[in-house]
Amino acid sequence: MNSYLKLKKIFNEASINSDIAGILHWDMSTMMPEFSRKQRAEQLAYLSKLSHDKIASREVADLILNAKKEKLEKKDISNLREMEREHKFSVSLPIDLVQQISRISAKCEGEWQEAREKSDFKIVSNTLNELINLNKQEAKILGEVFNCSPYEALINKFEPSSNLSFISDVFEDLQNYLTPLIDIIIDKQKSEAVLPLHTKIDEFTQKKIAEHIMNSVGFDFKRGRLDKSIHPFCGGSTNDVRITTRYNIENPLSSLDGVMHETGHALYELNLPEEWAHQPVGKSRGMAMHESQSLLIEMQITRSLAFKKYLSDLLKNKFKISGESFSFDNLYKLGTRVKKSYIRVESDEVTYPLHIILRFNLEKRIFNNEIKVDDIPVVWNDEYKKLFNINIKKDSEGCLQDVHWYAGLFGYFPTYSLGALTAAQFANKLRNELPLLDNDIENGHFSNLTNWLKINVHKKASFYSTNAVLEQVTNSSLNAKYFKDYINNRYL
Amino acid sequence: MNSYLKLKKIFNEASINSDIAGILHWDMSTMMPEFSRKQRAEQLAYLSKLSHDKIASREVADLILNAKKEKLEKKDISNLREMEREHKFSVSLPIDLVQQISRISAKCEGEWQEAREKSDFKIVSNTLNELINLNKQEAKILGEVFNCSPYEALINKFEPSSNLSFISDVFEDLQNYLTPLIDIIIDKQKSEAVLPLHTKIDEFTQKKIAEHIMNSVGFDFKRGRLDKSIHPFCGGSTNDVRITTRYNIENPLSSLDGVMHETGHALYELNLPEEWAHQPVGKSRGMAMHESQSLLIEMQITRSLAFKKYLSDLLKNKFKISGESFSFDNLYKLGTRVKKSYIRVESDEVTYPLHIILRFNLEKRIFNNEIKVDDIPVVWNDEYKKLFNINIKKDSEGCLQDVHWYAGLFGYFPTYSLGALTAAQFANKLRNELPLLDNDIENGHFSNLTNWLKINVHKKASFYSTNAVLEQVTNSSLNAKYFKDYINNRYL
Repeated sequence: MNSYLKLKKIFNEASINSDIAGILHWDMSTMMPEFSRKQRAEQLAYLSKLSHDKIASREVADLILNAKKEKLEKKDISNLREMEREHKFSVSLPIDLVQQISRISAKCEGEWQEAREKSDFKIVSNTLNELINLNKQEAKILGEVFNCSPYEALINKFEPSSNLSFISDVFEDLQNYLTPLIDIIIDKQKSEAVLPLHTKIDEFTQKKIAEHIMNSVGFDFKRGRLDKSIHPFCGGSTNDVRITTRYNIENPLSSLDGVMHETGHALYELNLPEEWAHQPVGKSRGMAMHESQSLLIEMQITRSLAFKKYLSDLLKNKFKISGESFSFDNLYKLGTRVKKSYIRVESDEVTYPLHIILRFNLEKRIFNNEIKVDDIPVVWNDEYKKLFNINIKKDSEGCLQDVHWYAGLFGYFPTYSLGALTAAQFANKLRNELPLLDNDIENGHFSNLTNWLKINVHKKASFYSTNAVLEQVTNSSLNAKYFKDYINNRYL
Repeated sequence: MNSYLKLKKIFNEASINSDIAGILHWDMSTMMPEFSRKQRAEQLAYLSKLSHDKIASREVADLILNAKKEKLEKKDISNLREMEREHKFSVSLPIDLVQQISRISAKCEGEWQEAREKSDFKIVSNTLNELINLNKQEAKILGEVFNCSPYEALINKFEPSSNLSFISDVFEDLQNYLTPLIDIIIDKQKSEAVLPLHTKIDEFTQKKIAEHIMNSVGFDFKRGRLDKSIHPFCGGSTNDVRITTRYNIENPLSSLDGVMHETGHALYELNLPEEWAHQPVGKSRGMAMHESQSLLIEMQITRSLAFKKYLSDLLKNKFKISGESFSFDNLYKLGTRVKKSYIRVESDEVTYPLHIILRFNLEKRIFNNEIKVDDIPVVWNDEYKKLFNINIKKDSEGCLQDVHWYAGLFGYFPTYSLGALTAAQFANKLRNELPLLDNDIENGHFSNLTNWLKINVHKKASFYSTNAVLEQVTNSSLNAKYFKDYINNRYL
C-alpha cells in the first residue's frame, strides 16, 4: 500500500496547510489590525494555491489509480474515496476560474455592503450578474464531473451526496405544513404574557456566563477559545477550535443563544476521531450535518424548558441575576416566541425554514436560467408575499439582507434547513434512548447528551454520508416528520 | 532582467510564507490554547521547510547567476546581494542538520526549564553538549561558506557583516571603562533618596497608559497590536506588527519600560520602505541594529528626565495617578538606579554590558574548543567574580539564567550590547540635530524623533550594513566613546 501511504502524507500536509488558513481566518475576524486586510488576503491566496497544487496534482491522480489496486482496510478505503472526491473537485475546476470567482466575490461583497446600506439593488446587480455567470460555469463543470445537475453540484460542495429532487419534495411538504401553522401559533401566543429582560448584563459577565455553560456542556478550553467578532462563527484548526460571538447589553441573553449554536459546531469538530485527524475521512461531513449539530444544541437543548430551569438557577445562584423576567418560564417563552420577520437571521425556528425555502426556490430557478438577475428583487418580494402574506418595503429587508449570494455562495442555504430536520430526527432518537435527559439538563449534566452525539455522529466523521448516518442511528433516511412532531409538541 | 524578476517573485512568496509563520508564532505566545502546542510546532515546521525549499533551490542558484549578468538599478543590485546571502545561508546547511538542531534545541530547552528550577546544571549538560556540537558543525560550515571564523559566522546569522576582532576590542575597552565606574556610581547614588512606587495600578489601566504613550510615540494601531505574553516580544508580520508585555501590579511601571523597548523594535518594522516590503533588502538589518532602535527608545528616551516629566504629568492629569513617588524626579531616579545583579534581565544599562561581555567571552572560548561543557558553571562563576567582585551561589543565578544557549542561540548575546553602543551613537547625533528634543518630549511630541529615526535608520532597511549606516549618519563607524559619554553624562 505504498501509493496509499504516499497519498496519506500529501493529504496530511494539505490538512496542516488548511489548518494554518483556519487560524489566519480566525485572526482576521478577531484580532487583526484593520490595515492588514490586503496582505492577509494575499497570505490566504498563497495557502489556497499551495493546497490546490498539492491535491490537484497529476501525482495524486496517479497515486489514486494505483492505491485502488492495493489491499486496504475498510476505513482506508473510505479515506481513499474521500481523497478521490477532493481530488476530482480540485482538478475539475480551472485555477483561473477559481481565482476569478474569488476576485469577483470580493468585489461583489464590497458593493453589496453599500447596496444593502442604501437599499439599492442596482449598485450590485452588474457584478452579481458576472458572479452568477461564473458560478454557472463552475456548476456546469462540477455537474458533468460528478454526474448531476448544475445546481445539485453546488449543493454537494457544501453537503456531499445531496439529492436535489429529494430536497425539493421535502421542502414542498414542509412549506405546506408551516404556512397555515404559523398564524395558528402566533394567535395562540397572543394570550401569553412575556416579559422583556429588564436587567442589562455587561459584556464581561455575559462572557463568564457563556464560558461557564460551554464548559458544562463539554467544550474543552484547552483545545479552544471563545472570542468576539462582528459575525459569529466556529473556526480555528484541528484540535484548536475557536468560536466567536457578539454581545448586546440591551438583549443580554441573545449572545448566549449564538454561543450555544457555535458550541454545537465546536463539539462536532472537537470530537472528530483523533487517529484520522489530518485525513480527508477524518473531517466533519458537510454543512447540513454540521448545522444539525449546532441547531440540536441551540434549539432542541438550549430552548427547552429543562435548560431554562438550569439557566435561571445558574443566573440566580452563581451570577446573582434574578427577577420575574429571568424566571425559567419567562425565559422559555422568550426563546419560543414566533413572529413573521423580514430578516432570516432574526427569525425563530418555526418560520426559519420558509426563509430558506424562498432562497432555495430562487436559486433553483436562477441556475435553470429562469430568472434574470435584474428580476431578483421582484421575484423575491412576490415569493415572500406568498409565504408570509406580507409585502416587503425595501430590498435591504429582502434580497439584499444576506451576504451569501454576493460572496459567491450558491447552494449553501438549503443546508441550514436540512440541518434543522436532521437535528430533529437525531433529537427524537436521543430522547428515546436517554429518557432522563431533561432531568440531566435541569441539573446541568450534559455528558450523557454529548457522549451520545460523540458516538452516534461526531466519531463517524466523513466515513459515511449524512443520510447513511441518519439511517444507522434512527433507522430512517431524512424525514421531515420528526421536525413536524417536534414543532407540534413545542408550539401547539 | 528576466531572472531577477523571477527571483523577486520567489522571494516575495518566501516573505509571505514567513509572515504567516510570524502570525502563528504570535498566536502561540498570546492566544493559542495549551493543548495545541504539538500541532502548532508541526505547522511551523511545515512552513519553514517550504521556505527552505524555495530559497535553497537549484533554480534560485541559477537565477542568481543569470541575474548578476543583467542590467539592474542600484537598489536592485542591493536586493540581489541580499538574495544571494539568504540563498547561500540556506543552501549551505544540510536540512538534516537544521532539523536536528531544531529538535535537540526543543529537547534542551525543556530540560533547561527543569535544570533552572532545580538549579542543577547536570540535568541539562548532556543535551547541551550535544547541541553545542551541532552548533559547532553549523558554525564550521557557515565559516567556510562566508569565509570567516566559526564563531563570527554565528554572530553574522543575527547581525550580518559583524567583525569578531573589532567586537572583542570594543568589549575589552568597555569592560575596562565600566568595571571601576560601577562602584563609583553605586557609591554616589547611596546618598540619593528614592521612593518606591506606593500605588498599585491595575492591569487594565497599565494597558491604557501603555497604549496612550505608544500612540503618542507613533505606533500605528491600525497596523499593529499590544497584547500580553509570558516573555515580551515584537513579532507579527509585515505591516502587522504585534508587541507584547507582562504586567506586574506591585511594580506598576515595569511593564511600560518593556512596552517602550518593544515599541522601539516595532517602529523600525513599521517604518520599513513599503515599496520593498516583501523583498530581502526591504527587511530590517540585523539584531544589533534592531536592538539599537529598541534601546534608543527605552534608554535614551524613556529614562530621560524630559520623558519622566511628560510621564508624571500624563499620569496625574489623564490617569489621576500622583503622589511624591510619581514625581518626575523620583521616576527618573528609579529609572537610573544602578546595582550589581546576578540576573541580566534585571540589570540596569550601566552594568548590562558586563553581563554580555561575560557571555561573549565564554562563547568565544566554547567555539575555540577551550571550554568543556561540564566546566561552564565554574568558568561562568569565575568570570562573574572578576567582573562584579561577587560570588555566585547557585547556577540558576549563573549559567542557567538565560534560555539562549539551551535554545541553540549562540552568537546572539553580543548583539544586545552592540545595539546599546549603536543607540548611544545615533542618539548623540540625533540630539545635535534636534536641539529642542527634550522640550518636545516633555510636551509629548515625538514626531521629530521618530521622523529622524525613520529617515536615518528605518527606511534604509537592509540596503547597507549597520556600520555603513552609522558612518552615513554619524560620520563614524561604531565607537564606544558615545556610549561612555552618555553614561558619564547621566550617571556621574
